[in-house]
Amino acid sequence: MSHENDNSNDPLHAKKKAWSGRFSEPVDAFVLRYTASVDFDKRMALSDIEGSVAHATMLEKIGVISAKDLEDIRRGMDQIRSEILAGTFEWQLELEDVHLNIEARLTALIGDAGKRLHTGRSRNDQVATDIRLYLRSEIDEIVRRIEHLQDVLVHQAKAGSDMIMPGFTHMQVAQPVTFGHHMLAYVEMFERDRERLLDLRRRVNRSPLGSAALAGTTYPIDREFTAELLGFEAVSQNSLDGVSDRDFAVEFCSAASLIMMHISRLSEELVVWMSQRFGFIKLPDRFTTGSSIMPQKKNPDVPETARGKSGRVYGDLIAMLTLMKGTPLAYNKDFQEDKEPVFDAIDTVKDTLRAFCDMMAGVEPQADVMYRAAQMGFPTATDLADYLVRHGVPFRTAHDIVGQTVRAASERGCGLEELPLDVLKSFSDVIENDVYEVLKLEGSVNARDHLGGTAPNQVRRQVARWEAIIAERAAK
Amino acid sequence: MSHENDNSNDPLHAKKKAWSGRFSEPVDAFVLRYTASVDFDKRMALSDIEGSVAHATMLEKIGVISAKDLEDIRRGMDQIRSEILAGTFEWQLELEDVHLNIEARLTALIGDAGKRLHTGRSRNDQVATDIRLYLRSEIDEIVRRIEHLQDVLVHQAKAGSDMIMPGFTHMQVAQPVTFGHHMLAYVEMFERDRERLLDLRRRVNRSPLGSAALAGTTYPIDREFTAELLGFEAVSQNSLDGVSDRDFAVEFCSAASLIMMHISRLSEELVVWMSQRFGFIKLPDRFTTGSSIMPQKKNPDVPETARGKSGRVYGDLIAMLTLMKGTPLAYNKDFQEDKEPVFDAIDTVKDTLRAFCDMMAGVEPQADVMYRAAQMGFPTATDLADYLVRHGVPFRTAHDIVGQTVRAASERGCGLEELPLDVLKSFSDVIENDVYEVLKLEGSVNARDHLGGTAPNQVRRQVARWEAIIAERAAK
Amino acid sequence: MSHENDNSNDPLHAKKKAWSGRFSEPVDAFVLRYTASVDFDKRMALSDIEGSVAHATMLEKIGVISAKDLEDIRRGMDQIRSEILAGTFEWQLELEDVHLNIEARLTALIGDAGKRLHTGRSRNDQVATDIRLYLRSEIDEIVRRIEHLQDVLVHQAKAGSDMIMPGFTHMQVAQPVTFGHHMLAYVEMFERDRERLLDLRRRVNRSPLGSAALAGTTYPIDREFTAELLGFEAVSQNSLDGVSDRDFAVEFCSAASLIMMHISRLSEELVVWMSQRFGFIKLPDRFTTGSSIMPQKKNPDVPETARGKSGRVYGDLIAMLTLMKGTPLAYNKDFQEDKEPVFDAIDTVKDTLRAFCDMMAGVEPQADVMYRAAQMGFPTATDLADYLVRHGVPFRTAHDIVGQTVRAASERGCGLEELPLDVLKSFSDVIENDVYEVLKLEGSVNARDHLGGTAPNQVRRQVARWEAIIAERAAK
Amino acid sequence: MSHENDNSNDPLHAKKKAWSGRFSEPVDAFVLRYTASVDFDKRMALSDIEGSVAHATMLEKIGVISAKDLEDIRRGMDQIRSEILAGTFEWQLELEDVHLNIEARLTALIGDAGKRLHTGRSRNDQVATDIRLYLRSEIDEIVRRIEHLQDVLVHQAKAGSDMIMPGFTHMQVAQPVTFGHHMLAYVEMFERDRERLLDLRRRVNRSPLGSAALAGTTYPIDREFTAELLGFEAVSQNSLDGVSDRDFAVEFCSAASLIMMHISRLSEELVVWMSQRFGFIKLPDRFTTGSSIMPQKKNPDVPETARGKSGRVYGDLIAMLTLMKGTPLAYNKDFQEDKEPVFDAIDTVKDTLRAFCDMMAGVEPQADVMYRAAQMGFPTATDLADYLVRHGVPFRTAHDIVGQTVRAASERGCGLEELPLDVLKSFSDVIENDVYEVLKLEGSVNARDHLGGTAPNQVRRQVARWEAIIAERAAK
Repeated sequence: MSHENDNSNDPLHAKKKAWSGRFSEPVDAFVLRYTASVDFDKRMALSDIEGSVAHATMLEKIGVISAKDLEDIRRGMDQIRSEILAGTFEWQLELEDVHLNIEARLTALIGDAGKRLHTGRSRNDQVATDIRLYLRSEIDEIVRRIEHLQDVLVHQAKAGSDMIMPGFTHMQVAQPVTFGHHMLAYVEMFERDRERLLDLRRRVNRSPLGSAALAGTTYPIDREFTAELLGFEAVSQNSLDGVSDRDFAVEFCSAASLIMMHISRLSEELVVWMSQRFGFIKLPDRFTTGSSIMPQKKNPDVPETARGKSGRVYGDLIAMLTLMKGTPLAYNKDFQEDKEPVFDAIDTVKDTLRAFCDMMAGVEPQADVMYRAAQMGFPTATDLADYLVRHGVPFRTAHDIVGQTVRAASERGCGLEELPLDVLKSFSDVIENDVYEVLKLEGSVNARDHLGGTAPNQVRRQVARWEAIIAERAAK
Repeated sequence: MSHENDNSNDPLHAKKKAWSGRFSEPVDAFVLRYTASVDFDKRMALSDIEGSVAHATMLEKIGVISAKDLEDIRRGMDQIRSEILAGTFEWQLELEDVHLNIEARLTALIGDAGKRLHTGRSRNDQVATDIRLYLRSEIDEIVRRIEHLQDVLVHQAKAGSDMIMPGFTHMQVAQPVTFGHHMLAYVEMFERDRERLLDLRRRVNRSPLGSAALAGTTYPIDREFTAELLGFEAVSQNSLDGVSDRDFAVEFCSAASLIMMHISRLSEELVVWMSQRFGFIKLPDRFTTGSSIMPQKKNPDVPETARGKSGRVYGDLIAMLTLMKGTPLAYNKDFQEDKEPVFDAIDTVKDTLRAFCDMMAGVEPQADVMYRAAQMGFPTATDLADYLVRHGVPFRTAHDIVGQTVRAASERGCGLEELPLDVLKSFSDVIENDVYEVLKLEGSVNARDHLGGTAPNQVRRQVARWEAIIAERAAK
Repeated sequence: MSHENDNSNDPLHAKKKAWSGRFSEPVDAFVLRYTASVDFDKRMALSDIEGSVAHATMLEKIGVISAKDLEDIRRGMDQIRSEILAGTFEWQLELEDVHLNIEARLTALIGDAGKRLHTGRSRNDQVATDIRLYLRSEIDEIVRRIEHLQDVLVHQAKAGSDMIMPGFTHMQVAQPVTFGHHMLAYVEMFERDRERLLDLRRRVNRSPLGSAALAGTTYPIDREFTAELLGFEAVSQNSLDGVSDRDFAVEFCSAASLIMMHISRLSEELVVWMSQRFGFIKLPDRFTTGSSIMPQKKNPDVPETARGKSGRVYGDLIAMLTLMKGTPLAYNKDFQEDKEPVFDAIDTVKDTLRAFCDMMAGVEPQADVMYRAAQMGFPTATDLADYLVRHGVPFRTAHDIVGQTVRAASERGCGLEELPLDVLKSFSDVIENDVYEVLKLEGSVNARDHLGGTAPNQVRRQVARWEAIIAERAAK
Repeated sequence: MSHENDNSNDPLHAKKKAWSGRFSEPVDAFVLRYTASVDFDKRMALSDIEGSVAHATMLEKIGVISAKDLEDIRRGMDQIRSEILAGTFEWQLELEDVHLNIEARLTALIGDAGKRLHTGRSRNDQVATDIRLYLRSEIDEIVRRIEHLQDVLVHQAKAGSDMIMPGFTHMQVAQPVTFGHHMLAYVEMFERDRERLLDLRRRVNRSPLGSAALAGTTYPIDREFTAELLGFEAVSQNSLDGVSDRDFAVEFCSAASLIMMHISRLSEELVVWMSQRFGFIKLPDRFTTGSSIMPQKKNPDVPETARGKSGRVYGDLIAMLTLMKGTPLAYNKDFQEDKEPVFDAIDTVKDTLRAFCDMMAGVEPQADVMYRAAQMGFPTATDLADYLVRHGVPFRTAHDIVGQTVRAASERGCGLEELPLDVLKSFSDVIENDVYEVLKLEGSVNARDHLGGTAPNQVRRQVARWEAIIAERAAK
């Protein structure tokens, strides 16, 4: 190492120079760029400042820095915060990361007190603190957007609580459901996403500050105090774990993947519903692209883009899991690669939820089209069989009769309830006029009147339940 | 379709016969096998029976089946359960899945009452109920194994609470820590795994029963009643969501991936510690393979196998996420593919935790080797610098002095605290005899005496905390 | 280690017994099962025998074993092969893997010559040889099935070379295409899959035999000779790489993922086309499940199952990539986990291709339905604009005219070419009778008459090209 | 849709305004940003220009545009290229993507000829062409960097062709190998990466240009001509496939994942070798970070960062595979999400290879340390057993003798070859002075003298083989 300059006769060394010469960027500058993180971690700057001020407050409390130092640090940090918000802060790649950039500026502003700030901590616990603070606040914003989207969907559900559409299994018309019921299914999905975020938030919201490099510090720090100042719910109980835990980042990417999975399902449905063969909904122009030449064509760009973006969040999850696989304790430089996947997942989820809040409010269900599509699927065939059985027809016979009836309606191109009574009676004379109650789509949906069922009555109860929940959340 | 037999002159049809002829298995048998699930879903048989009995009990309560029917169903199911446990139940591929196999057997045993059991439900909500019951019980077993492993690790931590080893960052010796502290870091990781499982268990433990095919049923079912009978905490509020929700399976695979990620980290450390260059631990022979010819060689088979198995659980997670991407509501046959990934993740995690419970109890840390390795890394260099600064030496000068001291110890092949006082004084005359307090590894670890720090004092406090938690859990 | 039996007073030891006692399976048996591979690697048995016979032949050639030994080994291996094929071979878990099972049986059959077989090799190069031989033969079978599926699709393309359907972008009707053209798009995709398999086969087909444990062997082995006997194209040039290379397994899982991705796309289309809103195709009953009560409903079980199975193969790929990440040279036990993902990918791809060969031959495109769906999408609007521009109408004006025309047709519920000339002329008097040539779907598709275009003329050329390729391949 | 402005009394509409009001960015601007791609696809600008000029050249050739038009287009494109290279081109988000930005600028520069450029193509085939051209050139650069890294490694191999180190399996010392042999193992791995890139390059290098939107175009385009102008090897044979094929992007991400997997393995080894317990290598300071206070500590930042980055490329692969899953033909907006994963994989691989070219040239293997580590692992125990067997000692007895010998050496803290002859003879009197030939590490490695073996003789042969290959490639 030390005699690196003497080996000019070494052929490997000669090659070395030649190799580097092939690239336009000098080695040192390149390595700096390759290992630096400031380009992406600067978005945690405000969290970094928040953490530093809390740390300084604690240092003053335990007598490690003076009241004057603390005052200087606060003042300096206030100015840095202003510079960052104003966009005038000069980020320097040579200072590698957000922490050193801010520390250097602080020292430039207030002198030695800036250097004393780093007493009793290390970049290892500092970065772990920053990302937790940052992620915590982003989780809160994502939760707000989920609640917002739920609100939009509940409004759609309310408006569509008795709007009949075909319910599909295997993409085959199965039984009639209501549009409101369908919308509420997504409200339930997003509610689970919300639950998951709140569950994992507890694991994010623990303070690693004071873990120092890996083993704690020799200063008599008060970790509960800094945790309290920063709004953490708990303090991590082991310093080795404190600096090397990235579970929360994996768990967040997993929760984000589930959100995007739900979005991909909703997007798939919107794309299908928008196709001319379905025509179940219309979307405001701003969420689609069209062609002035083909007015019938509206490309559902937003749902398609969102569906595609599910892939990148799945990818972020795999990036995090791979990154952590097989890494020994405690801190490893690999962990620096945790930020971009997490940031990408945050951005993608936030933007997508925003887009869906706007777009889903603009969805215009085409009640007539959906009703007709439901009829053409003969989804009340089951109801007819039930009717026959109730009137004493043996099960197997009833099935045959239903088969013939569906065939007859299919040939006439009408729904089952559009068949005249005499036609129906020609298949079974137990059939009377009251059969139309069960043949009608309305009869079918109304009959599914239990908790979770598709009956408009139940949909309205669920809407009311959600409205109460939304109101309660808003009141907080 | 119907005239499929008439098209014998169609060249495509002629080819068709030829194509099928190339395979040894007839088309119908092959398609049956391709789409059947009984080979893997039969492991949910007891859950299926449990769910069916609860459903029957409810049907009797609301008057849809008679008391006699219910009694027959219970008796039949008891017998089927016995046959399954005894291994005499005959599974038939032609009956596709676990549900139809059991139903067919029930009807064979008790006649028509068996057919009436399926009133007011569908295979769609039945399978969703089964997998939730099954997974719930497996989660409970996994939680028990995690607690068991924590117990083992806490014992190791207790025994090693003042056993000094090198603490690494970047796999470089950084500061001394204790073996107990290191073990407790994993106790914390597994505690988060346990938390995650308990969090997601709430989302598993909701009853989809009564969602029927997709829209609910026309029978006046009592979903709260069946939910209560089956120990579910809640009832799913939307039937479309009830039959198409597989979030819990994704979430379980994600939690399982994190467990395996932690295991991969611990495995990596065990493998490294076992290598002759480290020699930090010994493992009982049964967890390794060796060679009678090379007695010094012990291949750490169990940790390596476990580390490798992290991949398959990550794969299970990706399988589930991919499976669900872009699937429309409500049920799709794709969802049948949810079982194998979940079952594989369950088996892998359970087996691996079992192996680690046994193996970690047998880990024999080599205190002397670790102590010597810590010394040779000069990890108290920081402590010496702190000492000098406390004695008024300017920061930068202190650094130079430490650098010279480390070099001197390195040249002598000894630890810093093994340097005689006169040698130390030759670098700085502020150094006195009390310096050995800070140079010694013991002094260094003892000084990190705050919550989460590596001081033996703190490690013992954490051990006591964990012993109390474990005792409390055992008392339940 | 050695005094493990003395430490009965050690509380950790006492606990240890207690812990193990909690499980029903004894530790040793459990660890054996956890680390054994014979349950899944026995499917490589014939490859193992093939490799061993080649190795023995070489050993005899270089004089390490006698001609008698070789004869005994061949005879013993013949018998073992027969036993395996007859299903009478007794696999023993205690013998861990396929290699030791066969070796033990061989020694039982022929005595010491069986032991001498292992001279100059190790299980590390043996298993690497086996999996390459096995995978090579499975690749060949998969290639055959891909070619078979291409043949089926080309037949469909031929029959549908002028069958007009709507071409979609964004699932919106864009321009008319032919069903044959659509089928051929998949032939192209599967051709790339075939190319990839043949490319990677070269990397599979290299002999690691002779790498021994990691460094080669002290015997004067002839690696080219065994490679030739086994049909390998090349010999791996580095023994460390030879035993630790699993690239080919990753690469195979990647190629398999692409196959399944294509299958998922085709499946998605089949599912959509089968839905009542589309009705573009019919599938033979044996590839669907229906309901006797709802004769209109046919659940496309095979495509849905296949689409779901794409997830498991993606998962296999991630399992392999994760497994290999960060593993040092040379062999590690982790690598044993390579087999199950590869086997699962092989099985899934083979079964799925088989199912699609059968099923795609049975697809019945509904020409009338597709034609009408194309008309209703007004996909020749672009052609009308082109017509107007050719007749001197400024671009922007032409667009307006087309917009009005589409609206008129939409209101009448007819296709553009069904509008009477006077109606068309009311929008622009440059329009004459020849406009119907461009408005008609046939005119539109016929006009796209260049390499790769959708014109029936081009589709027939592509069909002929593929028929020639298929014939050439069959001739080999 | 059209009456969207009339529904001011609709409560959903009132809410809608409220919802949008909660966000600071207006809906339209937000949706534009959400679906636009110019921020990332502008890096394909030069490829876009290249493709456009080729398309224009063809249009002129077939008489669709005039020679003057072509001249104008060429001139305009030259200027745009200059503006882009000079950084003065103004990218506008409102123009969505790279194509429309360039087209708008072209029209501003040259008028109507710019509009005519788009005749006979669509953005769907344009973007597919661009990304192929772009990726092709990046593949070439990656191949160059791989070759460069191979060159560096071959130099290290040459210098270390007889430098003995412990060969590990299971991270346990197994047999001695040479450092050169170890380096060459990676040369082989990277050679496979190179092969894969060249294989997939053929599939990248096919022209989709002329597929137009999905069905081809009505203009008599000459696709072979544009393909030839652009250096494509072939023309895609099906327009639907042409615009919807992203196989090459998946395949590239897969090849990139394998490269990063190899890098992660090498990184793992470098990190372990750098740890004080190993000390096998030294790295130039610029690839590490240290601490002035702990001169013995060097954090291997570059290998750790690279190991961490393997995760992001695996993630890119999963993003691509997920993105494509289940997408129907032909173009879908989802496909726009293909770019960022591919670009990220390109950047990561290129930067990492660059870093490793520089760093591996600077690796200083510590021959003495490695030699001593090999001795201490007793890796010639196998050689001793072979010696005994050759002298007539029965196999099992030989094993016992070796076990005793290793124990004796272990107790004395010396290597096997350091034991005096009388000590050795005390275990077996067949042992004579020539035993030292096989006990010595040099004897052991020299004995593995066959193709692929670790003997220095073989390593030098391989180095010569690689030097010839490298020279041949450089000559091209």
